[in-house]
Amino acid sequence: MAEDFLVVFTPSGRRGRFVAGTPVLTAARSLGVDIDSVCGGRGLCGRCQVRLGLGEFAKHGIVSRAENLSEINEVELRYDRKRGVRPGQRLSCQARVLGDLVIDVPPDSQVHKQVVRKRAEARAIEIDPVIRLHYLEVDQPDMDNPSGDLERVMKALDEQWGLQGLECDLRVLQILQRVLRAGEWKITVAVHRGQALTTAWPGFHDKAYGLAVDVGSTTLAAHLCDLSSGAVMASAGVMNPQIRFGEDLMSRVSYVMMNPGGDKEMTVAVRAALDALFKEVAAEAGVDKDDILNATFVGNPIMHHLLLGIDPTELGGAPFALAANTSMTLWASELDLTEVNANARVYILPCIAGHVGADTAGVILSESPQLSEEIMLIVDVGTNAEIVLGNKDRLLACSSPTGPAFEGAQISGGQRAAPGAIERVRIDPETLEPRFRVIGCELWSDEEGYAEATAKTGVTGICGSGIIDVMAEMFLAGVLAADGTIDGAMAAKSPRVQADGRTFSYLLYSGTPEVRITQTDVRAIQLAKAALYAGARLLMDRLGIESVQRIVLAGAFGSHIDVKNAMVLGMIPDCDLAKVGSAGNAAGTGARIALLNQQARDEIERIIKRVEKIETAVEPRFQEHFVAAMGIPHSEAQFPNLAAVVALPERPALASARPGAPNETNRRRRKRRA
Amino acid sequence: MAEDFLVVFTPSGRRGRFVAGTPVLTAARSLGVDIDSVCGGRGLCGRCQVRLGLGEFAKHGIVSRAENLSEINEVELRYDRKRGVRPGQRLSCQARVLGDLVIDVPPDSQVHKQVVRKRAEARAIEIDPVIRLHYLEVDQPDMDNPSGDLERVMKALDEQWGLQGLECDLRVLQILQRVLRAGEWKITVAVHRGQALTTAWPGFHDKAYGLAVDVGSTTLAAHLCDLSSGAVMASAGVMNPQIRFGEDLMSRVSYVMMNPGGDKEMTVAVRAALDALFKEVAAEAGVDKDDILNATFVGNPIMHHLLLGIDPTELGGAPFALAANTSMTLWASELDLTEVNANARVYILPCIAGHVGADTAGVILSESPQLSEEIMLIVDVGTNAEIVLGNKDRLLACSSPTGPAFEGAQISGGQRAAPGAIERVRIDPETLEPRFRVIGCELWSDEEGYAEATAKTGVTGICGSGIIDVMAEMFLAGVLAADGTIDGAMAAKSPRVQADGRTFSYLLYSGTPEVRITQTDVRAIQLAKAALYAGARLLMDRLGIESVQRIVLAGAFGSHIDVKNAMVLGMIPDCDLAKVGSAGNAAGTGARIALLNQQARDEIERIIKRVEKIETAVEPRFQEHFVAAMGIPHSEAQFPNLAAVVALPERPALASARPGAPNETNRRRRKRRA
Repeated sequence: MAEDFLVVFTPSGRRGRFVAGTPVLTAARSLGVDIDSVCGGRGLCGRCQVRLGLGEFAKHGIVSRAENLSEINEVELRYDRKRGVRPGQRLSCQARVLGDLVIDVPPDSQVHKQVVRKRAEARAIEIDPVIRLHYLEVDQPDMDNPSGDLERVMKALDEQWGLQGLECDLRVLQILQRVLRAGEWKITVAVHRGQALTTAWPGFHDKAYGLAVDVGSTTLAAHLCDLSSGAVMASAGVMNPQIRFGEDLMSRVSYVMMNPGGDKEMTVAVRAALDALFKEVAAEAGVDKDDILNATFVGNPIMHHLLLGIDPTELGGAPFALAANTSMTLWASELDLTEVNANARVYILPCIAGHVGADTAGVILSESPQLSEEIMLIVDVGTNAEIVLGNKDRLLACSSPTGPAFEGAQISGGQRAAPGAIERVRIDPETLEPRFRVIGCELWSDEEGYAEATAKTGVTGICGSGIIDVMAEMFLAGVLAADGTIDGAMAAKSPRVQADGRTFSYLLYSGTPEVRITQTDVRAIQLAKAALYAGARLLMDRLGIESVQRIVLAGAFGSHIDVKNAMVLGMIPDCDLAKVGSAGNAAGTGARIALLNQQARDEIERIIKRVEKIETAVEPRFQEHFVAAMGIPHSEAQFPNLAAVVALPERPALASARPGAPNETNRRRRKRRA
Repeated sequence: MAEDFLVVFTPSGRRGRFVAGTPVLTAARSLGVDIDSVCGGRGLCGRCQVRLGLGEFAKHGIVSRAENLSEINEVELRYDRKRGVRPGQRLSCQARVLGDLVIDVPPDSQVHKQVVRKRAEARAIEIDPVIRLHYLEVDQPDMDNPSGDLERVMKALDEQWGLQGLECDLRVLQILQRVLRAGEWKITVAVHRGQALTTAWPGFHDKAYGLAVDVGSTTLAAHLCDLSSGAVMASAGVMNPQIRFGEDLMSRVSYVMMNPGGDKEMTVAVRAALDALFKEVAAEAGVDKDDILNATFVGNPIMHHLLLGIDPTELGGAPFALAANTSMTLWASELDLTEVNANARVYILPCIAGHVGADTAGVILSESPQLSEEIMLIVDVGTNAEIVLGNKDRLLACSSPTGPAFEGAQISGGQRAAPGAIERVRIDPETLEPRFRVIGCELWSDEEGYAEATAKTGVTGICGSGIIDVMAEMFLAGVLAADGTIDGAMAAKSPRVQADGRTFSYLLYSGTPEVRITQTDVRAIQLAKAALYAGARLLMDRLGIESVQRIVLAGAFGSHIDVKNAMVLGMIPDCDLAKVGSAGNAAGTGARIALLNQQARDEIERIIKRVEKIETAVEPRFQEHFVAAMGIPHSEAQFPNLAAVVALPERPALASARPGAPNETNRRRRKRRA
């Protein structure tokens, strides 16, 4: 019997004995060590690079010496000249066992590597490729033993990669003969979920990309990712062209109701815009569209239906029935998408309920409340707020009709978040003078150099996060009463508070255009934030809890607001402010996770089945909560965490809300804060 | 405990005891009795009709009385008024058990009924529907328990039909909401192979059709079938428009080689022609295209590839590699077919080898050699002859390059089989005078009324079966020597034998146009028949047999030739003439079987895997057999069955083939026959 040697792989710790001459990759594979390879050990792909551990490893009871690994061979030298072996590493398909060895598999060489996210609390994305590439050497046809080209490709997949029972698209079959002959019977195939051949290239090919796509009602956003490393190669966004059919979701549904076939127009529009977006993002990354093999989509239910070519009318009124609440795996061609490989598959995340869409499924994937011990409240604020509450034991979801006020619509000086929009506001409680920051400039309006820095954009209006700030500051400065009335008595204190017909307003910016917070503006935000709070509260009732342990604000708006001020206004329930955070575009992140990790697809499909769906429209308690939430919080008992950091007023509202009549409450509150 | 009664179902003999009031259909289903239903027992479809057996059934130990079945109810009366209950039958979903019963399920009410074929030796087609229709009553959406429309449809399929885990096409999802609401939550769905929802109609619907399609190089033929009864509703054929790119297969491949993209042109052409054909056949049957839910296709490898949009160039030369030798299930839309339901599936039978196509797979399904005890030789004669040999133990297949002579091409007076073509010939061995029959007239040319009957068509030429006849008769009359030489010595005996340059010819018809069998014509047929025989012989060698027990001739040509004369010429090996028959368009029949019986699809996929594929082009023995088969058989030892019914010449060929020099052999042969 030939002498054999101990080989230990780190970090997995897997170990086995191998006869001299065994390629390290072969040893690794026989032990099930997670090590990447596209070329199957032919020294072409460089994915299988490893590092030799040197010295005595007491823990493993082994002494690993340089001479225990074969010398660098011609194949490695060739690869190094062409593409470069990483310093200190070897191609494990070429390096052979000559003695006891400790072999370290660096993260870059693992198939199931992790992509660490920027936010510390977010779990890393584990790569579990939806598409894998396999280099094949295929038998040539033999007249003495006739067989189809596809049959021989399948045989090679079985013999060289252990893959069996794959399906093959007609479109792959249409190119297969040419590819086989162009590659002189050496080809690379892409396999989707271990189940289907989705394309083939002549010779060796190691590029495979995917798109994570967020189909928002306002913005379409796409991230082009390397399916192997998880790296985002390029990102881009574009206005959803459906806006010309209706600014918000309901107006688009109305358009369909009033224009038979209007859904088809919107479907065509969004698909064309996505195609253009894909082209742009691929160009930016310098990626060939034929190498884009997968895409995942999230979107709210109406965007979801319109993307799929399903009439969204049913979602426009009770009982808000989805066409389907399952995920879908389709060909990109079924969505008329042409700026990807013709055989690319797309995966549409599942919708949860009529108002809780695939975007929320993406948010769940991103924020993982199903794994949390703590009770999490996740709020994705858009025209509707989609709300998820729960932890590993139970998950609930609903949607709340916040309307577009948070996006700056229906606000006198409101605008979308864009350069020139006021996004942060502070009000001096004594003088009631404001200072603010606009998007596109890091300086506050009272800092030196501000005027020069904003000369180009100027001040164009106020966006959602600015409105939250100014209202909370107005409340804390006593300009706004707890019932939402702008206190006319303050006009005596500051010229910023001005009579405005029968009510008062607060002049935030006196330039052109003037930005003024009117009583109507305040009421619009009160309605929106009460809806949001009522939704959260409804879910808390269902779960039988009085407070939550963590709050995640998702979406563009949720990412930009001052969370403390949001709590001051009562948009969200009380919570330790250290446990309130923003998740950015969590829906988009969820799409990216589903793109990079096939298990995540099964996971979200399982999770959404057990999410308890609450329809706010039929919950009598929602209306109660909504009415109760119109005011601005002031009770320390109700908001203990908030009260610990902010001086909340003792008494709720103006006794008399008549303009010009300052009342006791306000006077007292001012005193206290001073 | 409630009293229960014995119910026996015939013809299955299944029996069980049921409490009074049990619907007969319910009883039948609980026993697994094969009984049809689309409406699931709601008295809408009438598929479940049964007949009450009356009297004492000693065999079953039961007395079945009229009063043991409930009286005809309102639902049955309504059905009878609307669509008619068959005389003496009852709707088993309405009739209830009130005592012991014998219930006969007539064939029309069985799902798995049999369609008996015209040919006694052909096995009946068992219906095993690829598409089944299911009437559903679907829950309405409920806001308190939100779910998707599709989810509720799936729930109804599970609860009402026991069907689980079905997939749903995007295109079905796109219509589902409208269909559910139009049908007021009562719909009928079509389920493909128990696996996928392929369409839905509002309310009750019980029509489902399919197309069995033979994509021939010359003719496209389609049969529109009722998927439930198996009945052929209409059939039609049309010229394959690819003929304008090349008359025969090889010239079409050449067209592709010389015109890049030429394959695309031919693909577009054949698909458009198929669509037009489907439209025609549906119109003829009065069938709505949306009710056509399935189609099956057979064709030779080149037709197969061009239909699928695969470049056939590889099939034009060695090693003749197929793109794939698996079956394919596709959407009709993937083949650009629009004259069927948008979600219709198509099934492409598998090709066997580079020259042995899906048409041969169809022939195998039709003729079932894999079930035969006897060794069968099946020959489908076209431009290539596709040959299958074997029985239940072993099957072999090859293709032989017969060329177009059998179709009348390359023959001086040759033409396709069409009215006016001579298809039968007899020659008086004494006078050498011929008589013949032309297509379109039942009378022989020497019978009374022939002239009048053929006044319209006249004689336009001679088709394949006529050529076989005239050559065999020439041989038996001594005009043709065993080596294929036309014996110039016969010119002395009859003016029909005439010098024709350095050779002789036989004047079959002296009208206009004249039909003459020239020496060149004889040589062309010799080449063709030698190729055919050599192919069969090669397979017999492989199987190690000297004779076959049954011969089936398939295809249009095979169906029209005189099998005895085919054997006289040595096209086919010796066989008991009673065991030589024609199968008509067996490939098309195979397509029909695959359309009506889903098990047949699995069966053919299994069978073709074990078919031994012989490539004649690389078999040295093929060439030997081919040369040896050029002559016309004359040995009683080699053709004992034929010799028993036909006087074969004792010696093979003219000693001298010089024209005008009658030799000993011919003289002796004439003597013997006289």
